[in-house]
Amino acid sequence: MRISVAQINFHIGNFEKNKGLICDAIDKAKADKADLVIFSELCVPGYPPLDLLDRIDFIEKCSSAVYEIALHCKGITAIVGSPTINENPQGKKLFNSALALSEGRIVFSANKALLPTYDIFDEYRYFEPGKRFSVFEFKGLRLAITICEDLWDEQHFDNEFEKRRLYTISPMDELVKQHPDLVINISASPFSHSRIESKAEIFKTKARKYGIPVIQVNQTGANTELIFDGASMIINSRGEMWRRLPFFEEAFFSFDTSDIFAGNDPVGDIRTGHVELMHKALVTGIRDYFSKTGFTSCILGLSGGIDSALCLALAVEALGNQNVRALLMPSTYSSEHSIKDAVDLANTLEVKYDIVSIEKPFTAFGEILEPLFHGMKSGITEENIQARIRAVILMAVSNKFGSILLNTSNKSEASVGYGTLYGDMAGGLSVLGDVYKTEIYKLARYINREREIIPQNSITKLPSAELKPDQLDTDSLPEYSILDEILYQYIELQKPADKISGNGIERATVDKVIFMINYNEFKRYQAPPVLRISSKSFGDGRRLPLVARY
Amino acid sequence: MRISVAQINFHIGNFEKNKGLICDAIDKAKADKADLVIFSELCVPGYPPLDLLDRIDFIEKCSSAVYEIALHCKGITAIVGSPTINENPQGKKLFNSALALSEGRIVFSANKALLPTYDIFDEYRYFEPGKRFSVFEFKGLRLAITICEDLWDEQHFDNEFEKRRLYTISPMDELVKQHPDLVINISASPFSHSRIESKAEIFKTKARKYGIPVIQVNQTGANTELIFDGASMIINSRGEMWRRLPFFEEAFFSFDTSDIFAGNDPVGDIRTGHVELMHKALVTGIRDYFSKTGFTSCILGLSGGIDSALCLALAVEALGNQNVRALLMPSTYSSEHSIKDAVDLANTLEVKYDIVSIEKPFTAFGEILEPLFHGMKSGITEENIQARIRAVILMAVSNKFGSILLNTSNKSEASVGYGTLYGDMAGGLSVLGDVYKTEIYKLARYINREREIIPQNSITKLPSAELKPDQLDTDSLPEYSILDEILYQYIELQKPADKISGNGIERATVDKVIFMINYNEFKRYQAPPVLRISSKSFGDGRRLPLVARY
Repeated sequence: MRISVAQINFHIGNFEKNKGLICDAIDKAKADKADLVIFSELCVPGYPPLDLLDRIDFIEKCSSAVYEIALHCKGITAIVGSPTINENPQGKKLFNSALALSEGRIVFSANKALLPTYDIFDEYRYFEPGKRFSVFEFKGLRLAITICEDLWDEQHFDNEFEKRRLYTISPMDELVKQHPDLVINISASPFSHSRIESKAEIFKTKARKYGIPVIQVNQTGANTELIFDGASMIINSRGEMWRRLPFFEEAFFSFDTSDIFAGNDPVGDIRTGHVELMHKALVTGIRDYFSKTGFTSCILGLSGGIDSALCLALAVEALGNQNVRALLMPSTYSSEHSIKDAVDLANTLEVKYDIVSIEKPFTAFGEILEPLFHGMKSGITEENIQARIRAVILMAVSNKFGSILLNTSNKSEASVGYGTLYGDMAGGLSVLGDVYKTEIYKLARYINREREIIPQNSITKLPSAELKPDQLDTDSLPEYSILDEILYQYIELQKPADKISGNGIERATVDKVIFMINYNEFKRYQAPPVLRISSKSFGDGRRLPLVARY
Repeated sequence: MRISVAQINFHIGNFEKNKGLICDAIDKAKADKADLVIFSELCVPGYPPLDLLDRIDFIEKCSSAVYEIALHCKGITAIVGSPTINENPQGKKLFNSALALSEGRIVFSANKALLPTYDIFDEYRYFEPGKRFSVFEFKGLRLAITICEDLWDEQHFDNEFEKRRLYTISPMDELVKQHPDLVINISASPFSHSRIESKAEIFKTKARKYGIPVIQVNQTGANTELIFDGASMIINSRGEMWRRLPFFEEAFFSFDTSDIFAGNDPVGDIRTGHVELMHKALVTGIRDYFSKTGFTSCILGLSGGIDSALCLALAVEALGNQNVRALLMPSTYSSEHSIKDAVDLANTLEVKYDIVSIEKPFTAFGEILEPLFHGMKSGITEENIQARIRAVILMAVSNKFGSILLNTSNKSEASVGYGTLYGDMAGGLSVLGDVYKTEIYKLARYINREREIIPQNSITKLPSAELKPDQLDTDSLPEYSILDEILYQYIELQKPADKISGNGIERATVDKVIFMINYNEFKRYQAPPVLRISSKSFGDGRRLPLVARY
């Protein structure tokens, strides 16, 4: 039997486009003489459709598209992912299904049994778990068709408080009773830089455990926060990576099952650096947010610091320099070198920039607020006014020219609330909101791997918000190396305070940082969507009560 | 047997406070000679604790508090709600439990079997469903102890696409096999103005179906968006409301079970008007957001329009006039009557106000942006600049005086994106973001039920944003009576477009409104938390993909 794997970038709710992409790949598979072509999870509506699944009209559109794709499957069978209606009188209204389509019909279906409902996943919100397990007999082979999490029943969580076995059943333990020859797993598995190896290990372990090859087909491309890395896997029965599709790209690959059964010529995994993948993920995230919302151009504020410099470099890669515009908005507290560093970067990247001083509106606000603030000391309020004036200017340009404002805040400052709501926290998309400051440096050096793009001075100087004279980030915060270590252990690993301190980290510092994280939930509540590259990013994957006292 | 019902306002994560409230109520129950005192769902941590449940340190605090409360139960038994650890090697790490405590021990426990995972509820994110059902034998009676949703297996959803039976099991069908004498339901059930009667009917139906009295104990008070109405119910075996505790207040009530078994003296339900309850809900929501975050004072922008007028009146009720401050921020487009209406209202409510013209910063922004916008027409960008200048001023006062900015946008404008991000959409809490414009009028008239508080002119004049000359809301939007009808059917009922049009509503209008709703998801993503009073509010209960094309 010959199988094609189609790793595609789908667009949520864009049925015409998704159908076209699927039918084109079916044609390609036929040209490759494939018997079976496999697509990713929920490819028909695009993943994740979220509460669009609550709409009957949306589900009807899925059904129509599935029917049209089935009609297109002449002389070939396709496995697609789509929601289907649960016809039982009880339970959730939908299943998350893998459908085998051929000659105008659904010839086999499997419903996802393990519904991830943690972090960014809410699948039990919509779907009834599948409870019946049967293999699909096709061209003399018995195929165990599973959907993403169905193979993740033994996953390891970063938060050690989670059980090693999150579910009370194991779909493969059920399916293996029917002696499958091949495991197929259609996925929509987002990227997390800390899980590149452990994700591959999930599938390798299953192949080894059951002695059956595993074909995992993942989607690629980004939908708002979530970035899918593709990197679909074909693993032989010894648990070796037999073929791997590229990261963060559409790809198509056909092979004979006899080759994998024979274990012929395993190519092994793609060796890609950690920082390189973070970089690709962020560029993909920016590119797709724009292409899928229909916007082409962006604007951002360039301070001369490393965060906005990195953000500009990523935006230029994603959108092209002609679609990126920068504003330098100095105040009396801006240093000379900041303006020079920003101008140098804009020139290097050939990006249009303007310098707009914030002095006039700052003076105007000072004058009209004087009667209200009479006799009061200048302080954080006035620092915030500067940040908010910059946001007004950036949003004015955004509105006037139809460009999306990119937010340049990093995860370290977002964590501790070191930013101004409606000021530097503004933007349509937070590019670096899941990147700790220490990782920002790594990415900046990666950007500069061949030539100096980000000025060395932006990388080496001490970080400063430049909202008052001689201000440094470390006036208010611990050193970033310490801060990021505490943040990672508290946010990603969810460790208690007493397990974080030690190894040169003082308990008082830990307590102060935890207090800042919790106190500033209200700011993050109103932050833009954050491109997610870690196992725990701010946004929908992390839900905390604003009024809690904890 | 004598039972006390304790309807209390708990604070999430504030273990000392919650423990104190519970122990005080235990003392009161003992003074009332009760054998059993019943508290609400997850009362120990406060509801909803959200992702704090992922933290082992948080769960350990729950366990300690439960133990201390158990020690306090001398000569009395208390039923409390708390997360407990699932000791099975497989499944979610926690149960949502009802624990009967007595003489320092947990003498009985029941785990919630039906875990609501829809709208604002995410319980399967944290909890393993209980699968064993047994009655608690206590003082000669057999008590069927259930937790909130456990009795909601036959609920009706506003979205007709949902099944009438969302779950594949019915806890009461299991428990009734053990012949219980009494059903106890500990709840954390938020208010929704469209479900006041249907919620009571859920419990009445169960009492009638099984011929057993039902005691439902709900929490009261608000936690961020969610407002709990209390209104605990004691329903006799004929399904009559035997006693009802007050709405939106802490309350305590003791009774002899013999009286309810005998059906003595049913008092019936509390008759409260619909608008009156919406009003109480909003005042509760404001009051608790402030008291639980530790803030006392608020600031808001007063335009002379009905939304900010209503918001001010509600804030004065919730926080006291001395804790409320208003800013009038006229521009050249503000009408004379607007300023007068705003001043009249501030004077009537004895609220401190200032008039701060936005002209100076508006001119300053015009000057610095002139080189960038040279030769371009003035338009929405300049309207947005005005709204954003007002936000800068309000946030400056908020920062300087430690007051929370109240957002005054209504649900109709939030739906269609008729508002400026980082402008009039700013604020720490959206008071009216779940109140349609047509309901705003009802609430305003309710505020004026005894005397004119909100100036009649604010109620009767045509709504305008006053951002350009002679602007009216109806320049961009349908009449609010039409708009709100479409919004309700699309958002709450989730009807398809073709089911909304008709009855005087044109399909083109429906399509335009739906487009505006979907297009503006990105604005609502960054909106403040919204006090929820409907069955579908913006915020965590409604999750839509920003990049969808649908």
